[in-house]
Amino acid sequence: MARPTLASLAAELGVSRQTISNVINSPDRVKPATLERVRAAIEAAGYRPSAAARQLRTRRSMNLGMRLMPATDGINGSILDRFLHALTESAQDAGYRLTLFCADSHEDEVLQYGELLNVAGIDAFILTSSSRNDVRTKWLQDNGTPFAVFGRPWETAPGDDAARHPWVDIDGAAGTAEAVTMLTAQGHTHIAFLGWQDGGPVGEDRQAGWERAMRALGAGQDISRLRASAPDTISGGISGGRELIARGATAIVCASDSLAIGAAESLRELRPELFSPGQPAGPGVRAAVVGFDDTPVAAALGLSSVAQPVEDAARHIVRLLTFELADRAGGSSAPEQHLLLAPHVVERVPLPLAPPR
Amino acid sequence: MARPTLASLAAELGVSRQTISNVINSPDRVKPATLERVRAAIEAAGYRPSAAARQLRTRRSMNLGMRLMPATDGINGSILDRFLHALTESAQDAGYRLTLFCADSHEDEVLQYGELLNVAGIDAFILTSSSRNDVRTKWLQDNGTPFAVFGRPWETAPGDDAARHPWVDIDGAAGTAEAVTMLTAQGHTHIAFLGWQDGGPVGEDRQAGWERAMRALGAGQDISRLRASAPDTISGGISGGRELIARGATAIVCASDSLAIGAAESLRELRPELFSPGQPAGPGVRAAVVGFDDTPVAAALGLSSVAQPVEDAARHIVRLLTFELADRAGGSSAPEQHLLLAPHVVERVPLPLAPPR
Repeated sequence: MARPTLASLAAELGVSRQTISNVINSPDRVKPATLERVRAAIEAAGYRPSAAARQLRTRRSMNLGMRLMPATDGINGSILDRFLHALTESAQDAGYRLTLFCADSHEDEVLQYGELLNVAGIDAFILTSSSRNDVRTKWLQDNGTPFAVFGRPWETAPGDDAARHPWVDIDGAAGTAEAVTMLTAQGHTHIAFLGWQDGGPVGEDRQAGWERAMRALGAGQDISRLRASAPDTISGGISGGRELIARGATAIVCASDSLAIGAAESLRELRPELFSPGQPAGPGVRAAVVGFDDTPVAAALGLSSVAQPVEDAARHIVRLLTFELADRAGGSSAPEQHLLLAPHVVERVPLPLAPPR
Repeated sequence: MARPTLASLAAELGVSRQTISNVINSPDRVKPATLERVRAAIEAAGYRPSAAARQLRTRRSMNLGMRLMPATDGINGSILDRFLHALTESAQDAGYRLTLFCADSHEDEVLQYGELLNVAGIDAFILTSSSRNDVRTKWLQDNGTPFAVFGRPWETAPGDDAARHPWVDIDGAAGTAEAVTMLTAQGHTHIAFLGWQDGGPVGEDRQAGWERAMRALGAGQDISRLRASAPDTISGGISGGRELIARGATAIVCASDSLAIGAAESLRELRPELFSPGQPAGPGVRAAVVGFDDTPVAAALGLSSVAQPVEDAARHIVRLLTFELADRAGGSSAPEQHLLLAPHVVERVPLPLAPPR
């Protein structure tokens, strides 16, 4: 049986749809006799006031929209899945749901915004994977749609319009700099950086942190020699690692865990003595490789890695959007519009090791 | 500036809200002069017919709802994240979005259904992690809400009502049985099973496949000796693996990749000769451990694992729901209401190995 609708119920009772809407949303406007009659009919018919009726009243669907990025090899993509979990939980705590959609590119994402706003009734968007001259932020700003970005606007010109929207990001450079500090404390002096071939601004940021730390150590002259790039895969990490070890590196900071898994393999292959259990303390006693994102794979392999506080980022994104959607009301103070969170290095002892008995 | 609403626009133009709705949705019911006047005003005001107005007309929000299970250690949870990606893409291809929510338990999930149907306007639900006497399926059936489950109804009584709803699952027992076959082909005869301490029906199913294959090999008398269980963690796998190796196992089929990572470590520790590169072919040349779910961690470690076709499952779930939501219309034939998909074993050579040059 078809569900009763506002229209079918109105026809049956001989009242207007507005009357039924008033019974549900503004009962004080309805005469007591009518109120009672319509309420009884609503109950008898099992009519369910639709989200639509509520939306007409509140103008809010309580739905935040986010594009789900394509599944990856499962190593580097896991950070965005963690972000998604944290975002869904934070949104729910604030009374919002998260609606997902797919797109092939930033341009395709923009093409879908209109339908998402008009048909799916999205209140605001969360953007990930920000890029230079991001077409998405421009469209949303022009359209007056509330949104917040997980990722900095990677603009070069200060004061650029794009930089004025709310964003949260994690300070990748601070993470790679901390990795250099940790390796220095282990006794390493020839610390290399293995980045992405097509790094983009995120990769450049991670490399910049390593460079800054190397200069601070007085190793500025080693920078061009101890820097390499590779495709973002385990085999990319193996070949990049070999290259850097051949140039004298004893430790490698990597732009991702995929690269770090490969780089650790190349160290295992070319410097197997670094991996013997029971070896005396000193340079190389640890794996001497640091990855990025602290993925489950890094944890399982015992690889050190830079951990991003994505849960904090998700919570702040929800704070930004709920403030905006509440029309900046209630006199509460605005959350920080641009927030750069600090990551930290998780230091691990690599496999294979005899596990504790 | 506040967005113009149906009400503000109606007041400004001196027409009813129904007239504006008709201009948008049923222009043939509106007098041409009025049509033109309202259309011009809509354009000038930048009024956006809300999703609400469309929903009142179509009675469909085109939103499917799914509870996002809590993030886990990132090893075993990754299978549900893969399912989520595939489901979002399949839903989008069919014109639907996926709306996520959180719940603490199946009971809490049920408590949220009402609000999700009434406020968020969800058309249908996708359930994961089915359990025995699942309270969720009973509620949804009683309420007449369309839904489909990723997971079998684990009922013992055949013909039970719960078994009548649509579901898709993956035949775990077939996967562990195939793992035994693969290890037998490698020359193993003492093949153990390491399961979950609190296995539930999914764990029991995986164990049943191993038992069936062992009996088929004439090794039925080994079953009680070569079976152990442990908490679903890497350290659980290490201790469970040690126990089984001490009882004579040379190969271990595991209920998860977490357990398999640990079991492989225990083999590495107690039977290091199995891991030397260049060893002649024969029993144990491979890691002799098979995990479950084919996670990124298993791939990175070179662990064999049972791969679940979750993308196929997601596509079929969308097929089931879109057929149901289209009111079984168009004379198209119904998709299979209960579908059990076959997994397959991905065979790998374990790390550490000298990678190919």
